[in-house]
Amino acid sequence: MRAVVMRGTALALDSVPDPEPGPGEVLVRTVACGICGSDLHAVQHGPALVAAQRELGARNPMDLERDIVLGHEFAAEVLDFGPHTERAFAPGTPVCSVPFLLRPDGIEAIGFSNHVPGGYGELMVLSSALLLPIPNGLAPELAALTEPMAVGVHAVGLAALGLHDVPLVVGCGPVGLAVIAALRLRGAAPIVASDFSPARRALAERMGADVVVDPAVASPYTTWQDVAVAATPDQAAPVNLVAPSAVPLRPAVIFECVGVPGVIDQIVRGAPSYARVVVVGVCMERDAFQPVLALGKELSLRFAFYYTPQEYTETLAALGDGRIDVAPLVTGRVALDGVPGAFRALATPERHAKILITP
Amino acid sequence: MRAVVMRGTALALDSVPDPEPGPGEVLVRTVACGICGSDLHAVQHGPALVAAQRELGARNPMDLERDIVLGHEFAAEVLDFGPHTERAFAPGTPVCSVPFLLRPDGIEAIGFSNHVPGGYGELMVLSSALLLPIPNGLAPELAALTEPMAVGVHAVGLAALGLHDVPLVVGCGPVGLAVIAALRLRGAAPIVASDFSPARRALAERMGADVVVDPAVASPYTTWQDVAVAATPDQAAPVNLVAPSAVPLRPAVIFECVGVPGVIDQIVRGAPSYARVVVVGVCMERDAFQPVLALGKELSLRFAFYYTPQEYTETLAALGDGRIDVAPLVTGRVALDGVPGAFRALATPERHAKILITP
Repeated sequence: MRAVVMRGTALALDSVPDPEPGPGEVLVRTVACGICGSDLHAVQHGPALVAAQRELGARNPMDLERDIVLGHEFAAEVLDFGPHTERAFAPGTPVCSVPFLLRPDGIEAIGFSNHVPGGYGELMVLSSALLLPIPNGLAPELAALTEPMAVGVHAVGLAALGLHDVPLVVGCGPVGLAVIAALRLRGAAPIVASDFSPARRALAERMGADVVVDPAVASPYTTWQDVAVAATPDQAAPVNLVAPSAVPLRPAVIFECVGVPGVIDQIVRGAPSYARVVVVGVCMERDAFQPVLALGKELSLRFAFYYTPQEYTETLAALGDGRIDVAPLVTGRVALDGVPGAFRALATPERHAKILITP
Repeated sequence: MRAVVMRGTALALDSVPDPEPGPGEVLVRTVACGICGSDLHAVQHGPALVAAQRELGARNPMDLERDIVLGHEFAAEVLDFGPHTERAFAPGTPVCSVPFLLRPDGIEAIGFSNHVPGGYGELMVLSSALLLPIPNGLAPELAALTEPMAVGVHAVGLAALGLHDVPLVVGCGPVGLAVIAALRLRGAAPIVASDFSPARRALAERMGADVVVDPAVASPYTTWQDVAVAATPDQAAPVNLVAPSAVPLRPAVIFECVGVPGVIDQIVRGAPSYARVVVVGVCMERDAFQPVLALGKELSLRFAFYYTPQEYTETLAALGDGRIDVAPLVTGRVALDGVPGAFRALATPERHAKILITP
């Protein structure tokens, strides 16, 4: 089949062997696959990503000396079944799946594996047990956004929102937009979001942000404070002997959705006391901050990665019945030969949110 | 009165004006005052501490150009009362208090204030409303340890311990020992603790650690894993598609009680997936770690500072009825003229846990 392969730090369109479904596996045709920030990381910071995989005890870290077909945000169509596999779906059924393949010797991370291809190729094999039919009302290509939106659903779930929490979303790339959609899904309000890009701020509003701020013009933290104070019932704040500065009554939940060094430090400096910070952006480099400020404010940092299969399923249902509308997020479509250009285009945030590959 | 004053980076025994109790205030004689790591920080890292105070919005940051009488871990004896102050306790009554003074224009942090002296002097003024009598069974000088022990009670409270959590305490100085005592008070078991110092490991065992480890000899994280596995009922771990490495069934709660750069990074590297890290050590310098490892393990970092007045009161009650025995922690006593030498002695952890000043 044709596929875009990662070779070291380059991407090449090439011919690779068709994947063959094993027992319990389904051969599918890729309908659409999103380009994720993690894919950009894999190409730009491959050795750092492998080092992290090793340190995290991954069974199968990537071998960068050999080709890898990226792509873990996919929607597909059933083609055929492996041996001893229940034919639960008719050929042609549009499906999606969490990007994991259950193999007798362990779990393969589809899209970061030397053994099975991801969605940057024409064909994939998926585990029958993990296959989900794409609901009728949802365009199959949009179901490819289930995966990135599930990241937001998971992060918001870990935030354990209270009734009065006022969220601030720092960074409105695909991760931040997914968090905003998930906050809206959970009924959080008002939602404050910040990004330097006007196009991304406009998308943030479409996904459900109530107040957007350009950090080049105003501090997101001051804006958050104004919004939180306006949304707080007019009553006296409780006296706090330990941190006697003014404590807004409505608690802050701040989502770090940028993932570059220095952002955690900015958030620790800007956050109000007792803020809960959920770190969703993936920073591949070492990062520094001032613990004494996090201590003095009694902050918490909750690191959120991936999602559970249950959250993925719930997210697909929300896309299917229109509670999350992902159509505005698709800012580009490319065929396989357009992938290297799409990677270059994604380096500048102004133009794109999500580019879909349609192999 | 006589007091040890901080002048820039020096300590000097000098004569200073007696404090005068205002309305609602009580004049007390200092019975004992502990030397805290924060006091060492104030002398060694004064400008950094003031910068942090300013950035945290403190109303009254310290003015290092003027004398400060340190000392916020104190026990005292009632001498006299300010005007319009209820004489709730007879003169001579042993008392203690959270180290805050309620003044009409705001709250003074006793021991870090240019306006009122801390426990490094013969006399103090305390707020009548915050005064607690020292219970009968407790030697008044030991009540001075209520404050540092309350830090442990607070940190353990923020950890929101589950029934099966297995704690690891990294660092067994006064903060770590307070955390161990609070863990024991809450019934957590088994408690694992690590420190390079044999004397501190022995104290950790006396305060309630079940397993102590010398990190120069064995990894605290491997030891924790062995203890957690041994304490886990023999059943299959749940399958986790996202982080497929072995997940011990009993959750990890790790207390960072060292407070020097690099320790958070070590904990992020060593911690098992999903560990909750409570940062109690006060690191005054910038500190770096690898966010991608915290993400891949979905760690949380909860920063714990000080305590509530309620926690202070509960801690004093626990000291009073013997549920926490702080006597082993007192490794030295000095008069006011011995304070500079005590500061030097505390630079080497082997010999001392807590040195009490008895003015």
